[in-house]
Amino acid sequence: MNCILLPAANFSNQSTHINAKAQIEHVNQVLGAKVGDTLKIGQLEGNLGSAIIADITPEHILLIDVNLTTAPPPKLNLTVVLALPRPKVLRRLIMDMTALGVRDIILINSYRTQKSYWQSPMLSRLEEFVLEGLQQGVDTVAPRISLQKRFKPFVEDELAQLITNRAIVAHPYGELLFSKYMQQQHLQKQLENSESSHSSILPSMVFIGAEGGWIDYEIELLTKQGCQAVHIGERILRTEAAVNAILGQWLI
Amino acid sequence: MNCILLPAANFSNQSTHINAKAQIEHVNQVLGAKVGDTLKIGQLEGNLGSAIIADITPEHILLIDVNLTTAPPPKLNLTVVLALPRPKVLRRLIMDMTALGVRDIILINSYRTQKSYWQSPMLSRLEEFVLEGLQQGVDTVAPRISLQKRFKPFVEDELAQLITNRAIVAHPYGELLFSKYMQQQHLQKQLENSESSHSSILPSMVFIGAEGGWIDYEIELLTKQGCQAVHIGERILRTEAAVNAILGQWLI
Repeated sequence: MNCILLPAANFSNQSTHINAKAQIEHVNQVLGAKVGDTLKIGQLEGNLGSAIIADITPEHILLIDVNLTTAPPPKLNLTVVLALPRPKVLRRLIMDMTALGVRDIILINSYRTQKSYWQSPMLSRLEEFVLEGLQQGVDTVAPRISLQKRFKPFVEDELAQLITNRAIVAHPYGELLFSKYMQQQHLQKQLENSESSHSSILPSMVFIGAEGGWIDYEIELLTKQGCQAVHIGERILRTEAAVNAILGQWLI
Repeated sequence: MNCILLPAANFSNQSTHINAKAQIEHVNQVLGAKVGDTLKIGQLEGNLGSAIIADITPEHILLIDVNLTTAPPPKLNLTVVLALPRPKVLRRLIMDMTALGVRDIILINSYRTQKSYWQSPMLSRLEEFVLEGLQQGVDTVAPRISLQKRFKPFVEDELAQLITNRAIVAHPYGELLFSKYMQQQHLQKQLENSESSHSSILPSMVFIGAEGGWIDYEIELLTKQGCQAVHIGERILRTEAAVNAILGQWLI
């Protein structure tokens, strides 16, 4: 927790309060903060800043001198379409994608997604994982998350309208290394005499499979809609590691 | 577990056997494999390949027709110097760095590393985490891991001999974005009329802090030895996420 995010409803004039248990525990146990100390806070969907602790009770921390003047960092111009992963790793994946600043997250069904994953109680806790991710990454704006339980209708009927720029699908057996793909985009931009900086050639949509990746039929449907299959070498990473390794491209 | 790695001592002629509990469980419960099925296996520090299940008992799986003809993927020309993290995340960090193919891992003390971490029983299980990482990444060659409990003597007396190429230290408050650093290296190589491909300009050593990062004094000692401080944007990532986001550069 690198900042404490509070809902707009908690704020009035120059004061606000913390009443969520996890946040109170963090202030007491991790920060060991006391009355008079300054906390890094933010208003959900608003600005970042600081406030001073005026009172601490077991259920409530009163903050005064609230000063929210820093705008949150810009979101990445990026939609991640992720095959619904094992419930066990869903929390960290949502946290990490949120902390990285992904603007849109689409959790999709895939051939290798077990049906039971869609019944997981973890799916009702996405908002909580997003809050953890925002407090980790020091951001206030939640990503938009949507669930797509049917792969084929989504890809065939909805995907084309969502691709605003280039789209790639991460596939260990894709024909093209990610860096070669980027080189191609770079050359293409130069031929067109348009801007070819690293950020201008990044795709705006990335499909990432869960464990076991995509099946050929899924790759076929995606490439038909204009997605390019790319890989990041022959090593197979955990889904979490792969998501961070790929999305790291958007940060540098 | 994307392959099952077995020690050289288990092999004789064309057969081998599995006797580690976790591997037997994986074959039975995750793969649901039966006598006659082919398994993806490898010999630790040797080749990758396949074998056929000849017999399964609760404590022992006999494999025949062993065929090990694929060399493991090359290691990355990279030393990661990681501030010893919380024991809870040590397992996944060692797994991920191993799966990514890091050649050398140095776990080092830092100002923000709690002293108690050095007493953690997790530190005696590194070999087990490495095995998990190799079986995830489909590799057979373990990274070299060393522990450095004293930051200053290591940096002042040993570091210079270990830097074979460029070294960077990941620091959220570093002056230079990673991509700008890479651009500078690229231009430098071009001025020297030498090769300037992505892989030829990657540093050979990366320092990564644990939660809270490095203190100014540590950054100062490192830059004195020629390390360049770089950052990957203002968002703060979990150590695991940061390691994968940064090391992803070596895969693409």
